[in-house]
Amino acid sequence: MKVVVTGGAGFLGQMLIRALCERGRLTRTDGAQYAIEQIVSIDQAQTGRLFVDERVGYVVGDIANAQFLAHVLARDTDSVFHLAAVVSGAAEADFDLGMRVNLDGTRALLECCRAQATVPRVVFASSVAVFGGVLPVVTDDTYPRPATSYGVQKLIGEYLVGDYARKGFIDGRSLRLPTIVVRPGKPNAAASGFASGIIREPLAGVEAICPVDASTAMWVSSPASAITSMIHAHELPPEAWGGQRAINLPGIVVTVAQMLEALREVGGDAAAARVRMQRDETIAKIVATWPANFQPARAVAMGFARDADFRGIVRAYMEAMKAAG
Amino acid sequence: MKVVVTGGAGFLGQMLIRALCERGRLTRTDGAQYAIEQIVSIDQAQTGRLFVDERVGYVVGDIANAQFLAHVLARDTDSVFHLAAVVSGAAEADFDLGMRVNLDGTRALLECCRAQATVPRVVFASSVAVFGGVLPVVTDDTYPRPATSYGVQKLIGEYLVGDYARKGFIDGRSLRLPTIVVRPGKPNAAASGFASGIIREPLAGVEAICPVDASTAMWVSSPASAITSMIHAHELPPEAWGGQRAINLPGIVVTVAQMLEALREVGGDAAAARVRMQRDETIAKIVATWPANFQPARAVAMGFARDADFRGIVRAYMEAMKAAG
Repeated sequence: MKVVVTGGAGFLGQMLIRALCERGRLTRTDGAQYAIEQIVSIDQAQTGRLFVDERVGYVVGDIANAQFLAHVLARDTDSVFHLAAVVSGAAEADFDLGMRVNLDGTRALLECCRAQATVPRVVFASSVAVFGGVLPVVTDDTYPRPATSYGVQKLIGEYLVGDYARKGFIDGRSLRLPTIVVRPGKPNAAASGFASGIIREPLAGVEAICPVDASTAMWVSSPASAITSMIHAHELPPEAWGGQRAINLPGIVVTVAQMLEALREVGGDAAAARVRMQRDETIAKIVATWPANFQPARAVAMGFARDADFRGIVRAYMEAMKAAG
Repeated sequence: MKVVVTGGAGFLGQMLIRALCERGRLTRTDGAQYAIEQIVSIDQAQTGRLFVDERVGYVVGDIANAQFLAHVLARDTDSVFHLAAVVSGAAEADFDLGMRVNLDGTRALLECCRAQATVPRVVFASSVAVFGGVLPVVTDDTYPRPATSYGVQKLIGEYLVGDYARKGFIDGRSLRLPTIVVRPGKPNAAASGFASGIIREPLAGVEAICPVDASTAMWVSSPASAITSMIHAHELPPEAWGGQRAINLPGIVVTVAQMLEALREVGGDAAAARVRMQRDETIAKIVATWPANFQPARAVAMGFARDADFRGIVRAYMEAMKAAG
């Protein structure tokens, strides 16, 4: 079978492709498992060192370009993991870019999916940014009122995935990912980027700035849990989703103070001392619109797992960094 | 000031244009009232007899054609009432047409609005079809889960109107209209069309088929109330809307049995006898996804009015028909 991963050159995309290669198999529309023969990554640019496997190919192009997408998906794509997006801070700063990639891109992709020979399974990486405003707790029935253009665009993507699924064009599933911590590499334009930065940089001996108050709570997940959830979402039968194709993923709620405490426990006092609290109103304002306290009952019932605690996330990151040299 | 009405040649569009001409004034972004100098109707086709006034012009064109829209709105449009849409039944039967008109059209219009010299007020006619599934009661916090493509497209329009408003591109307001009863003229492709047909046709001495069970409840509004609400929505200051730009409009809940009873009271036994109950699974299935019991607390607090009872709606329709000859 053929699998397409958009945003495949990014951090999560690379982890997903590696996990798919290790796994070797996925379930197709007929309910049976097949060997993954081909994985095609679509991304806007070729970044540094990419994961190599004989089954994996990398193409570079614009996801909002329908013709390009049609070439890549051809008519033989069985599964799509749609991770490509302009992140929250960038979509807020450049409205048109966000609309083009996050909305037009998703729509162009769904149209290509609809044109496949067999109905493809589509896993769409949405975000808790679909929620905004003051929300003491978010349940599966909380009305999504995004406070950012990124959140609006992701939510529209979810509704499209849902309607394409209802019409039988695709077998779609949307996952509202918590903030992913710890992301390796360089900071990106996501407003949530600091949450990784205040762990990653101090552990590497570099100073980091925390732009939000220590009392700020966030709903977070490790990268490993997010990847596990994406594959689990793909493997669940359509009946498990029914008419509701979007789901709040499990995560853990953690304050910045607790994150820094975990950093101290794992990295020592020297690491913790490398974080400087310096409020950035723009970032603090965006992050304040993201609720932190979820009750993802449906996802738990559907078998989605979550991380045990934040200390474990930091420890796993440090071990992965050591292993990578 | 210049006002644009999309779908202006339709039934509600015509009523709105007439009401705007009678009123003569609207509030602009600066908060002051100005005389309406020009009303431009945009519609896909020129239909029969149109309301004539020296301030009103009619243009025919495709609302999804951005260039056409840019010509019509130019850069001097102060207010837009966006009523043009492919109705529910048609959008379900022709997915691509619904997406083109209801989604692309709305987006093209919003982009044109954004290009105006002053920030225009935009009133978007959304629908209770944004709700679906089994909902005993719909409050202002009920999660919209549309069960039709029409509902999805309207909901996406709402989210775009909300985000364009948040970004300051427009001063937008979305109204979730109840089913409008009684519509005059010929039946349209709306799944709700029968609700008008079972009153209109019998009163005109013609037989009508009712495709849903007598126990089916609906959330309805008279055309006059809908027009009053659209103008009220336009006139409310932006502060009244705040960050929540979509609203459930007040209406009245009525079962088909009660509608037929009102028909009998107003039109007599002969009229009531002209309705034949003949279930149509396709229509019954769509209508069953529309909740009927709303608690529109926010709209009531904001001064939106509702009809007194269904008998009054039928009576007003009969009087309007008599007056029109």
